[in-house]
Formats: sequence, C-alpha cells, structure tokens
Amino acid sequence: MSEIIPHWLQKQASVSPERLALETPEGTKMTFRDLHEAVDASACRLASLGVRRGSRVAVLSHNSVEMVVLVHALSYIGATLILLNTRLTVAEWSFQLQDSEAELLLAAAKYEQQAKATPVALQTIEMLHEQPPQEYTCCTELRLDDVFSIIYTSGTTGNPKGVAHTYGNHWWSAIGSALNLGLSQEDKWLSPLPMFHVGGLSTIFKSAIYGMPLYVTQGFDEEIVQTAITKHGVTIVSVVTVMLQRLLRLQEKDGITYPDTFRCMLLGGGPAPLHLLEEAKTNAIPVFQSYGMTETASQIVTLSPEDSIRKLGSAGKALVPAQLRIMTSTGLAKPDEAGEIQVKGPMITKGYYRNPEATGAAFQEGWLATGDIGYTDREGYLYVLDRRKDLIISGGENIYPAEVEGVLASHPAINEAAVIGQTDTQWGAVPVAFLVKDKEISIEDLQAYCQERLARYKIPKYWHWVDGLPRNASNKLMRYKLQQKLEEGNA
Amino acid sequence: MSEIIPHWLQKQASVSPERLALETPEGTKMTFRDLHEAVDASACRLASLGVRRGSRVAVLSHNSVEMVVLVHALSYIGATLILLNTRLTVAEWSFQLQDSEAELLLAAAKYEQQAKATPVALQTIEMLHEQPPQEYTCCTELRLDDVFSIIYTSGTTGNPKGVAHTYGNHWWSAIGSALNLGLSQEDKWLSPLPMFHVGGLSTIFKSAIYGMPLYVTQGFDEEIVQTAITKHGVTIVSVVTVMLQRLLRLQEKDGITYPDTFRCMLLGGGPAPLHLLEEAKTNAIPVFQSYGMTETASQIVTLSPEDSIRKLGSAGKALVPAQLRIMTSTGLAKPDEAGEIQVKGPMITKGYYRNPEATGAAFQEGWLATGDIGYTDREGYLYVLDRRKDLIISGGENIYPAEVEGVLASHPAINEAAVIGQTDTQWGAVPVAFLVKDKEISIEDLQAYCQERLARYKIPKYWHWVDGLPRNASNKLMRYKLQQKLEEGNA
Repeated sequence: MSEIIPHWLQKQASVSPERLALETPEGTKMTFRDLHEAVDASACRLASLGVRRGSRVAVLSHNSVEMVVLVHALSYIGATLILLNTRLTVAEWSFQLQDSEAELLLAAAKYEQQAKATPVALQTIEMLHEQPPQEYTCCTELRLDDVFSIIYTSGTTGNPKGVAHTYGNHWWSAIGSALNLGLSQEDKWLSPLPMFHVGGLSTIFKSAIYGMPLYVTQGFDEEIVQTAITKHGVTIVSVVTVMLQRLLRLQEKDGITYPDTFRCMLLGGGPAPLHLLEEAKTNAIPVFQSYGMTETASQIVTLSPEDSIRKLGSAGKALVPAQLRIMTSTGLAKPDEAGEIQVKGPMITKGYYRNPEATGAAFQEGWLATGDIGYTDREGYLYVLDRRKDLIISGGENIYPAEVEGVLASHPAINEAAVIGQTDTQWGAVPVAFLVKDKEISIEDLQAYCQERLARYKIPKYWHWVDGLPRNASNKLMRYKLQQKLEEGNA
Repeated sequence: MSEIIPHWLQKQASVSPERLALETPEGTKMTFRDLHEAVDASACRLASLGVRRGSRVAVLSHNSVEMVVLVHALSYIGATLILLNTRLTVAEWSFQLQDSEAELLLAAAKYEQQAKATPVALQTIEMLHEQPPQEYTCCTELRLDDVFSIIYTSGTTGNPKGVAHTYGNHWWSAIGSALNLGLSQEDKWLSPLPMFHVGGLSTIFKSAIYGMPLYVTQGFDEEIVQTAITKHGVTIVSVVTVMLQRLLRLQEKDGITYPDTFRCMLLGGGPAPLHLLEEAKTNAIPVFQSYGMTETASQIVTLSPEDSIRKLGSAGKALVPAQLRIMTSTGLAKPDEAGEIQVKGPMITKGYYRNPEATGAAFQEGWLATGDIGYTDREGYLYVLDRRKDLIISGGENIYPAEVEGVLASHPAINEAAVIGQTDTQWGAVPVAFLVKDKEISIEDLQAYCQERLARYKIPKYWHWVDGLPRNASNKLMRYKLQQKLEEGNA
C-alpha cells in the first residue's frame, strides 16, 4: 500500500517557517517560508507554460537556488523531473529528452545556445519570472509510490537508461542517512556535487525533510567550501575523492583546522586511496566513506569515522533500512569471499523508466545486482574491490566503456574500439582507447567526432592503434587483457 | 507496495553490536548483541511451546527487560503480539483473548493466579527459560504492511476494539518522533508508561530503530526517574500529567535541577493544566506537550519547548509525516473554529482487528476521525478542547463511559446508568455514576459486582441515585446535563 505524507516542503514551511532553508556564499538567505513562497510562485509560472500534473520537464543547470526552487516547484505541480548532466553533448541530451518524452526543457542561460539544438521546447531559468503567473492545483500530499525524478545512467549495453526515483526512494534515502548520521538542529549541509546527480539532488530533499539549511554553491571550489566550514557553520559536506584531496591541500597550505562542530565529510563516488583517508584522519576530518549509485538514490552503505582506523578501506555496513549480500556464481558468498555486491531496500529504484527489460535484468528476487565486485569480512563490513569491472570513475563521474566504444565504432574509419580506464593521480582514472582502423584517420579528427557526441570527461585521453582486440571464444571483448598490457607498459 | 526492511533489532545488533540497548535501575546492562542473543534464545523457547509464524500470543506484564525480549522474540518468529492491560479484570482479559483468537498467554508470575481463570493456555514469563529450545525460522526482514501488535481500546459503543498496528505504523511513529526531537548518540530514553499501552511500547521500537539505550523501570516511581535523569544519563522521559506533577514536587523537595543534557519531557495522555506547564518552565524542564491515541501509535501532534510560552496550552503541530484538520458539520473549520480533530499519516492504524464495521466508522476519506474536539489557531497550532466528549482520562488511563454504563446496567437491580467524569486534583478526573434502580441494592454490592468485571480505575468513585436520566428527543443520553448538575453542586 502506497503511503501518503504531506508535501515535505509545505510541511516544513508550516512547522518551522522561520528556520533557515537556504544560504549561499553570495549572501542569499531564505527561510522555509521564503522558499515555499518562491516555489509556489515558480509553480504558477510553470503552469502558464502548460506544465500540468503528469508533465515531464527536464532541467539543465549547474547548482543554484533557482534549481532548488524548480525541483520543488515541479513537485508542487505533480510533474516529473528529468535531470540532465550539464557536461553532456547535444546528442546525449537529445537522446535522454526523447527517451523520457520530455515536453519542456528548463535550462540555465549559459546552456541556452546548445540547448536550442535539442528537439524540445526551451525556457531559460533566468527568464521564467517573465511568464505571467497562472493558478494551478498544488499537490499538498506526496504518494510515496509515485515517480518524481529520472536520472540517466549508462550501462554495459549501449544506450543510457533512465533511473526512475519515487518520492518514497528519496524519503527513505533521507531517513536512512539520518539514522546513520543523527539529526541535529545545528546542522547545515553543503553539497558541491551537482544536483543533476542523485548525491547532490538528495540534499534538496534532506533539507526539506529534516528542516535543515542547505548551503548552495554553484560547483566545487575548495576556497568556498573551506570558508563555509570555518566561517559559515557548515557541519556536513558531501564530496568525491578529488574534492577531498583538494580540500586537504588547501587546509595544509593555509595551516587551518576545521571547527569541532564540523561533523561529517561524506565521501562517495568510488573507492578512496588509503593514503588519503589516513591524511584526513591526521587532519581530524571525520570522513564517512560510502558506497552507492544512482539506482540506490545516493549512499546505501556507510562507514562511520569510529570504524575508520580498524576498517580502513571498507565502505562499511548497509544503512538501517537496507540490506547487503555478496553473491558468487554458486550462491551466497562466505565471509572474505569476493562476489557481486547486491543490495535491497526501500530507497532503491523500482526500475528504469519504460524499460522493463533492463529492470528485469537488474533485479534478482528483489535484490539489485550492482555488477560491482566486493566482499564482506567476518564482521559484515563491505570492501568494494572493483566497481563493475568495466566502469571508469573519473573525478566522481561514471564512464561506461560500452557507450564510448559505441561512438568510436560508429565512425566510418574505425573497425572496432575498446575503452578501459588508466590510473590518474588527479582524476582517479581517465579513459584510454584501443582502436582497429579501416581507413586512415587522425586522432584530432576522432576527438572532434567525439566532442559532438560525448561529454568531455568521457573522451579518451590516450589513444592506441592496434591490429586487433583480444576476444574470447564467444567473441566477448577481454578488456582485462588490455588492462594488463597497459600496466606492463606494452600498450 | 509494502516496503521491506531488515529486522530492526538484528540490524542494530549487526551495525552497533557493542552499543548499550537496555539498562535498569537494578544494574542490568545489555548491548544490542546481548539483546539479540536473548531474543533469539527466547524465540527458541516460544517455538517449543508451538508458537509459529502467524500465531497470536498475548503478553500480560508490567514493564521489564523480559517483556522487551518477548516483544522482539514474537517478531523474530513472525507471531502477532496482543498486549493486555495488567489493571483489567479476568472478564476483560478473557474478552480480549477471545476476540483476538489468542493461542497462548504469557503472563508475569504475579498475575498467574488471575490469568489461570482466562480461557487460554498459560505460560509464566519467569518459567519460560525452562522450556527446551527448539529451532525456528527467524524473520530477517519486516514487511511494513504486516500487522505486528494488537492493543484494545474501548469506544462509545460498548465492547473494546483491537487496534492493529503494522510494523510500518511503529516504524513511521519512531521516524516521526525522530524528525521532531532530533537523533543523538547521547540519547537514553526512560518510559515509566506501561508497555502494554502504545506510548510505552513505542519506546521498544525506537530503541532498536535508533540504536538507542532504553532505561527500563517496572513502573513509575518519581525517585527512580529523578535519579535516572540526574545520575544515569537519561535524556528523554515519557510521562503523563500526574507523573510530571510528582516529579516537580520531588524536585522542589530535594532542591535539585536536571542536568542540561536532559532534553525532553514528552508529555502525553490528556490535556495538562497551565499552572503545571508554567511550573515546569520555571524549573527549566523542557516539556514537549503531545497529542495522540492508540490508533496513532503514540504521539502524532507535538509542541516544541521553543513554542511553549507563546502557545501555552497548545498541543502543537502534526509530526512531519502526518496531517491534521478540524471538521465541523459543514466542512473544514476556519482558524479558531472548533470541530472534530481528524488526523492522517502512515503511523495511523489501518483498522481494528477483524472489525471492518468499526474501521469503516472511524475513517473519513483516509482521515481518522478522533471524536476529540479542538481548533487550530491562525498559525496552525492545535488546541484540544476536549477529548471525545464522553472520554474520562484518569491518571493517564482512558475510561469510556459506555463500557462502565454497560456493566452497571447489566445488574438486575439497575434500570439504567450514566457515567461522567468529575475533576480530581490527583487523577485529573474520576468516574461518577448516575443510577436509576429497579430494585433496592447497596452501593457495596454494586462495587463488588463491578470489581469482577471492570478494572479498578474504571469503577465509579461517586454514586448518585436519580429518578431518570436526561435524554433528548431521539432518546440519546445527554451526559452534559449531568455534568452541569455536578458542576452546580445539584447532583
């Protein structure tokens, strides 16, 4: 039975109207009452653009107060939100807009020129206030089984899939995190992670559900984050490895320590090197390592700082409402035995948007088969050995080789292509291409070809011409052979 | 769709095995690992008594560590728990045991003699360990739509009804409370309220869900509660008015103040007199007034101490996952207009056990019609004017006049009977009877008759013989006329 709760933002505006909801480094401050009023006004403008209950509306924006307002406004109307990654190409956006059947694209002005080339009606966020307000029926309740947002994620099998999150997925994610981190009236959360990814998006809902201020920054800037912690009362920051690295560098350069009230550096987006965790410990930064993915609506496994020495390198245990198991080809793994990481819980997506085939393939008896490899020790702590064998995580962004290979192989001069990750001190990993050519073509031409079709971070940084690709008997690409070649310096 | 979560106690035993789960004034201390092991052992003993998934098992006990263990053990097996009020008579227990189709009664030894007279197989809790252990299939997951517990509550219409609580009702109640009070690793909760009432019961689940120690006392003793706060780190105490009164008296007598770490005196079970709230404020006791009932799985409306001066006498606002409205006979009430209090939210029972008629009557469009009268002010704060017109709350226990009247009128010498509440400085209110006789009978005989059939607190304290009862045109008893008579001193 789908549970019904009052709309979380309207509720908070009623219970704690004077409490701070949003703050920015530029000095903007909004209470929950202010935020509710801004959201209601924004919903009236959207209504005059024809947005109705059930409409599908895409948002293309860097982090901003306006983006937070839009996310809530779409839920006031009862529309579905599609989040576009600002770093993708027009071709990638167009695929996601068409696949999700989006009716309208709300884009920040700086993306207007490219966004115009997509096949969907466009409205810049900055000009939305010029729309005449129109009455609309405000959703005062949220039905937890209703889908609210869609975020695309690529896979091994080519085209990206839309991960559909219900209101309940976001609710349970927020509650699972609160049961793990605790809830304090003093909290203020900063997420430099993009809100078009689920990690950043989730903080918008946490703010409304907890009645907690969000410190909104356009993106990641270590100076701004450090100042927010030391001068503006930020107590929790979500980061990926490369951000933590930069914060540590800055901290050392400036010779400062964070105040005792700073209580959580939530680290996600791929495995962190041990030396970094040790360094954070030396600097008294309480790092909560975590593991999660778009499908789990942000982190689902977390390690508390109290365990971080004893279990260095572990991602921890599943949140209170979640479960974790390791499966081998013959069944449940024993402690210390590696296998596929599978997770279960009410924060996990019910499936991919209008893609029952991919949904069916992703779940086993109610468990999400992540494709990632790991093991749990005798005390049940998870160690992630490898994100899904082929996944490349570069500066917190996921790169799926199959998607990049598909673009490369579509070029008339290319016969076949393979993409793997190469360790990189700055980004964790960068993509590397191995190509078999049909005709002569320059790397520059291939790069230009990719730039039209792939986000910049997905474009291979290194290129290798080969005579053929290693394949097994069933003609399956053996990427690990290329990996070996790379590591041995024989590429 | 029913959500599935891992069993909350097993989860906590896995995530925080070393954390304190239970503590008593006598010095017992159990970690979550200890508690899990005790519960698992207890489930093995219950299994050898024939308790299976789906079995219905009643528990009759004062608060104790053993009672906490039993509550969890029944959920490990997947049985349904029926909670019996220790203050009821054999006749009242028997009705509830039969209505709920209980197969087994687990009673504390001190109730063994009376419990023997009920029509159900009996096992004393103290002797349970003598049962041989037997293997059972442990429920590692909880399906939130499944009914776990049944607590009987009387109504206007005679027989008590079994309020069925799902695992989800208890979960959402705990989460609603956490979003209101916050969650801290330093918390320790003491509930002197009986665990056979939902207010006391709910703390068992909160402990497991939050990973928070419970300070378990047999019942209410102001010395023990005060010592628990001042010497044993208790930070939250649930009380009813009469308990708060006694704590204030003791505090004044001993000339002590509570430590700053004591952060919440959660006050429920009926309206509190203003002078008491003012006195608590003077003594720096952070009183959270609350409003709730068995059907709402403990408090659903709460007033924070920060509002307690400005809104003295208000019960506050509905918890984050809950909603509140006031209905008059013509529809939604305006601000400051009195009407029936109605509530909605996922912590509210889905209905009375095998009583679709009563369930249908209690709900209107998904809202629980409480029968209580109140209004909300312009800022949305609830003021409870009167618990359901006829309800008498005596020392935190609910007395339903219809039930007492039914017993009195069943006596051959009595023609008709009416029961109302009379203000009492110690208990808040006590029941008073108005009787029309058929034959001569003494009050002593009537008292003896009641003692066999009614809990002591329900037996009228004052008796009035009258020639007839005031009734309206449709023959409905007009209790308020008797109330007027009483207040004017004409009874």
